[in-house]
Amino acid sequence: MSSNSFGQLFTVTTFGESHGPAIGCVIDGCPPGLPIAVEEFRADLDRRATGKSRHTSQRREADEIEILSGVYEGKTTGTPIALLIRNTDQRSKDYGDIAQSFRPGHADYTYWQKYGIRDPRGGGRSSARETTMRVAAGVIAKKWLAERHGVRVRGYLSQIGEITPGSFDWAAVEQNPFFWPDAHDVPTLESYMDALRKSGDSVGARVNVVADGVPPGWGEPIYGKLDGDLAAALMSINAVKGVEIGDGFEVVAQHGSQHRDEITMDGFASNHAGGILGGISTGQAVVASMALKPTSSILIPGRSVNLAGEPVDVVTKGRHDPCVGIRATPIAEAMMALVLMDHALRHRAQCGDVGEMSPRIP
Amino acid sequence: MSSNSFGQLFTVTTFGESHGPAIGCVIDGCPPGLPIAVEEFRADLDRRATGKSRHTSQRREADEIEILSGVYEGKTTGTPIALLIRNTDQRSKDYGDIAQSFRPGHADYTYWQKYGIRDPRGGGRSSARETTMRVAAGVIAKKWLAERHGVRVRGYLSQIGEITPGSFDWAAVEQNPFFWPDAHDVPTLESYMDALRKSGDSVGARVNVVADGVPPGWGEPIYGKLDGDLAAALMSINAVKGVEIGDGFEVVAQHGSQHRDEITMDGFASNHAGGILGGISTGQAVVASMALKPTSSILIPGRSVNLAGEPVDVVTKGRHDPCVGIRATPIAEAMMALVLMDHALRHRAQCGDVGEMSPRIP
Amino acid sequence: MSSNSFGQLFTVTTFGESHGPAIGCVIDGCPPGLPIAVEEFRADLDRRATGKSRHTSQRREADEIEILSGVYEGKTTGTPIALLIRNTDQRSKDYGDIAQSFRPGHADYTYWQKYGIRDPRGGGRSSARETTMRVAAGVIAKKWLAERHGVRVRGYLSQIGEITPGSFDWAAVEQNPFFWPDAHDVPTLESYMDALRKSGDSVGARVNVVADGVPPGWGEPIYGKLDGDLAAALMSINAVKGVEIGDGFEVVAQHGSQHRDEITMDGFASNHAGGILGGISTGQAVVASMALKPTSSILIPGRSVNLAGEPVDVVTKGRHDPCVGIRATPIAEAMMALVLMDHALRHRAQCGDVGEMSPRIP
Amino acid sequence: MSSNSFGQLFTVTTFGESHGPAIGCVIDGCPPGLPIAVEEFRADLDRRATGKSRHTSQRREADEIEILSGVYEGKTTGTPIALLIRNTDQRSKDYGDIAQSFRPGHADYTYWQKYGIRDPRGGGRSSARETTMRVAAGVIAKKWLAERHGVRVRGYLSQIGEITPGSFDWAAVEQNPFFWPDAHDVPTLESYMDALRKSGDSVGARVNVVADGVPPGWGEPIYGKLDGDLAAALMSINAVKGVEIGDGFEVVAQHGSQHRDEITMDGFASNHAGGILGGISTGQAVVASMALKPTSSILIPGRSVNLAGEPVDVVTKGRHDPCVGIRATPIAEAMMALVLMDHALRHRAQCGDVGEMSPRIP
Repeated sequence: MSSNSFGQLFTVTTFGESHGPAIGCVIDGCPPGLPIAVEEFRADLDRRATGKSRHTSQRREADEIEILSGVYEGKTTGTPIALLIRNTDQRSKDYGDIAQSFRPGHADYTYWQKYGIRDPRGGGRSSARETTMRVAAGVIAKKWLAERHGVRVRGYLSQIGEITPGSFDWAAVEQNPFFWPDAHDVPTLESYMDALRKSGDSVGARVNVVADGVPPGWGEPIYGKLDGDLAAALMSINAVKGVEIGDGFEVVAQHGSQHRDEITMDGFASNHAGGILGGISTGQAVVASMALKPTSSILIPGRSVNLAGEPVDVVTKGRHDPCVGIRATPIAEAMMALVLMDHALRHRAQCGDVGEMSPRIP
Repeated sequence: MSSNSFGQLFTVTTFGESHGPAIGCVIDGCPPGLPIAVEEFRADLDRRATGKSRHTSQRREADEIEILSGVYEGKTTGTPIALLIRNTDQRSKDYGDIAQSFRPGHADYTYWQKYGIRDPRGGGRSSARETTMRVAAGVIAKKWLAERHGVRVRGYLSQIGEITPGSFDWAAVEQNPFFWPDAHDVPTLESYMDALRKSGDSVGARVNVVADGVPPGWGEPIYGKLDGDLAAALMSINAVKGVEIGDGFEVVAQHGSQHRDEITMDGFASNHAGGILGGISTGQAVVASMALKPTSSILIPGRSVNLAGEPVDVVTKGRHDPCVGIRATPIAEAMMALVLMDHALRHRAQCGDVGEMSPRIP
Repeated sequence: MSSNSFGQLFTVTTFGESHGPAIGCVIDGCPPGLPIAVEEFRADLDRRATGKSRHTSQRREADEIEILSGVYEGKTTGTPIALLIRNTDQRSKDYGDIAQSFRPGHADYTYWQKYGIRDPRGGGRSSARETTMRVAAGVIAKKWLAERHGVRVRGYLSQIGEITPGSFDWAAVEQNPFFWPDAHDVPTLESYMDALRKSGDSVGARVNVVADGVPPGWGEPIYGKLDGDLAAALMSINAVKGVEIGDGFEVVAQHGSQHRDEITMDGFASNHAGGILGGISTGQAVVASMALKPTSSILIPGRSVNLAGEPVDVVTKGRHDPCVGIRATPIAEAMMALVLMDHALRHRAQCGDVGEMSPRIP
Repeated sequence: MSSNSFGQLFTVTTFGESHGPAIGCVIDGCPPGLPIAVEEFRADLDRRATGKSRHTSQRREADEIEILSGVYEGKTTGTPIALLIRNTDQRSKDYGDIAQSFRPGHADYTYWQKYGIRDPRGGGRSSARETTMRVAAGVIAKKWLAERHGVRVRGYLSQIGEITPGSFDWAAVEQNPFFWPDAHDVPTLESYMDALRKSGDSVGARVNVVADGVPPGWGEPIYGKLDGDLAAALMSINAVKGVEIGDGFEVVAQHGSQHRDEITMDGFASNHAGGILGGISTGQAVVASMALKPTSSILIPGRSVNLAGEPVDVVTKGRHDPCVGIRATPIAEAMMALVLMDHALRHRAQCGDVGEMSPRIP
């Protein structure tokens, strides 16, 4: 299968480089009859967009999306949906000298080693600009999941550097530029980010993403487990170095009597498992978390080599995020939505809409 | 693609239930001409086997492997290699009452919700017995990687409960039943495990796995990234709840100036990235880590419900591992080997054995 | 995807060589709850088996099938179903000198060119013995199609050499060793085959296969068309050199006014299309046909070369079918059943059991 | 895998409707470093284009192709290549009443049955306009095959209605609007087509396609056979109802002594097999043929029903090909090129550029 495609039955193929003419995607396998309009992409694209606050990259892309196919009279037809966004704010001059050397911590070196050729403008294909199309595809998946199954997928930033939220409130998350669940922390974060930006450095972050309303039974043993696919989905996001389901790495120090989620007549008594057992959803909230490294595009010089094999100091000018984790929240939501929708379709393929048999929950 | 298959070009399909007649696998895509004999599976199967020390499950399986196809006069032929192991130590009686209720923390509930039917004997398909075949397939991958590319894949246990190694020595790892890298800690671990077993409880663990000798250029952007595929591979192992590449979740608190691996004339100055940038190998060691939950099969009663919808207390008798993480080390190695071999083949498909072009390392 | 696997959602992976220890398959994606017993494979395996009349190869295989996994208390569980048949009638001595030369018209030469190694015993992996497992998997597909959708898949021989049936009667097909639809022709066929066998030569054949009861809507544009997948399925059968859907090559000389199937208030007025338009089933019978070449394993010497690069004359002794097309009938049925079941599952994945929307037939 | 994608390692995903805003494709897996320019698509797009002679549809599309990604400084980079063509000559008014009824012989009915919704403008997704992108992708495959392996893929029309060529000359094929290999027949064909067009009817055709220079060893047993994939590729082309490899259906009446291609010290003595044995290329020319039905879009009224369930007479006005087979020649070439390139990459994945071992041809 194409390495630029994601999903087996709800398949998203993306294309495009950071500073090429356009980025886009082809979504195959969407059920017919789903109403979808260009305006519906706006909200999530804006949440992911650069240039919305001083805490993210100042590249300003219009991100005007065009639906090229697969929608007729406002509804999906079952044929592939192609989406296109023209790149408008390309400053190729910013990237001139990068073509000759390898920025430490970037994919410059590995793309060149793999392919013997690379598009150095803005990181080319390795740029997080590609995630714009994930968010766009995620809009469709989120809508279908919500309308058909009542599933809601939401994310938030749960850590920047050493800072963690003092409290948790979903309502706060969309009220600040950090997707932060505690409004009281926002001034602290702003000072922190301002100081960081001034220092020319960057910092890592953690993003949590939660899906409510997922019915039991989604996910396929053994190599198509819901958590296995989520791990692949989140790890495929730029800068991600770790993925957790439910309690994640905390389970290492837990005892079985503490970890296992007991079942009562009112349902599960806890959710250490993050809503997945044996790779299949339990009916509880599906909970995942991911760690994003600090961007390597910083103003502090770093040692590297150039194409001539000489040592050089690299300073990444241009417009970069001091904390790439911030804008990763809608991307994580999109990836979880893509995984869930794919598994919803896979489940009904094998087990039917109402199951081949119909015994269900105690 | 089949959910019981792993890998795109080196494809392993497993089958079998814990207490069915047999488990097995079909390995498709192995290059021709690789010498392979039945005896070569023994070492890794023994490392993964139950009943080897008092710290693992006392189920004793002979694990006699049979090569059914794909090998002629001691060499692979390029056709599918089928491997078969008969289950011999099946005590179905141990699992009689489990059929009527859902063990908390197990896949009993989710399989039943998904399929409306389940094989309750030993967890059926959801049992870690399936991983025997991963280890078997991994033997072939490890051998090919070693012979063809000089790659070596090794794992060790890096944490049990709160205990971490006092020091690190690869030579120690295979000298104790815990795959533990510090020989001095072994008596402590034995006491810890004995006490745990006596208490009827279980504990989590962390396993690290490292591949040396991986050349730069393996891995496929965007959704076939080497780290994305490793995350899926490791998360698909029973009981795994978290996966890290390189520094993993530590990156959340790191600064860019600290994290990015600088490049010098002698190569990379550090390996925070775990040998992968932009989803493609850098030529450094590929480093991953995973968290395993404490097994839910414990002697301490847990609340659950039965098929009649009544509350029950479940005690899991039978023969279980108090720390499933211990035996997971060879499984993690196998999964990393499967991923690397698959990507080695994918790389030469697109870029050729010697590259379509031949510029290389500074 | 594995090249030894067939189908996207109902995936059959086969393994095994003609004279290796065993042949087998793994069937993944079968819906749960389907009753299946070992005895149910007998009828179709017998229809395909050698040694049943003097007109087919005299190799006598017991073809005792064993279900290794995926069935619990007589019903499928949704996990992979592994089937195994031990090879019993292996006469490796028959194939001794074949190892040194390439039989004209066989895969000996191409396997050796591709892999640099081949299992010469009975053609190894290229032998039609592999089709035994297709027939076995087809038994499950046929049963599910019949029980769930009322679909019936049947085949017959429609030509041997220059001989075509004088009339057509489904009832006759299973009453003679040729799967021939006209009982009156049987004595003629027997004389023809006896003379052919005596001459040491072989002859080609044509097999037709028809599925009744297929609902409209199965098949996926553009590259997953029902007819595209049928073409691949039938062409993958040993010795097949041509595939037709509906009127097939007769359409070349037809006019549009003659070919197009008009629609009346009583349904379609004809079925030139073979039940498929735009790659999707119309609700009419799905009709396909395939051409099988005469086997190249004949007693008449043929020119070839040997591994030493010298010219040799090859005579294929051993036990071979003078007309491989005869036993191909159940194989063609099986392949059509596999395609239809796969598409049934794919259809309900995207469109739901009852469709995302429910407008239907006029 | 996406049903709008073709190929495993050289994967082409197409999108777009006949009268939507645009059609396009994403090509994934192309090796890096291949020079490719917009102008190189022109020749084959023109060969396929409508409106080039009075014998094809008069729809006039500019077919200006845009490369959106995957090419940097004139060379492929190994990342996905997206190609886009805007639809310019859309006359939606032509298709107004078609929306209410089902044209006999078209996919109108089956799309509506499958999806419950369809884009009726010009047949929407089921239109042969989609094949424009196959031809575009084929340009890249043809170029790579030629440069890297010296493979040349060429097609011609071998029959229209009852008319077959009087002689054969490759040089003639590109000198007339029919891709006809005998220049002397052209006036006859022109009269035939003029009369046909006047009658308002249409006719079928046969197209042959041949690849020279294919090395031995391409193709994967069992379900990834070169001929199996060719069959799927050609059958996926609009209007195709039959596919043959080598002698095709003529093998039914052949004897083994006649069919099998003997091997001499100068190579194969004949090519009845069409260059493929056991699903793997022999090193001879790969030869395939396909039958195209007469288009159902004719001026002669045909019986059908409408959405209200009433009987109607349908006349397909608009601009249609009286013989769709004519323009199918470059499409068939493209599909064969896609299959060959995919298998070239698959072969070197498993067996290496120089083979894992190196014994070769006698």
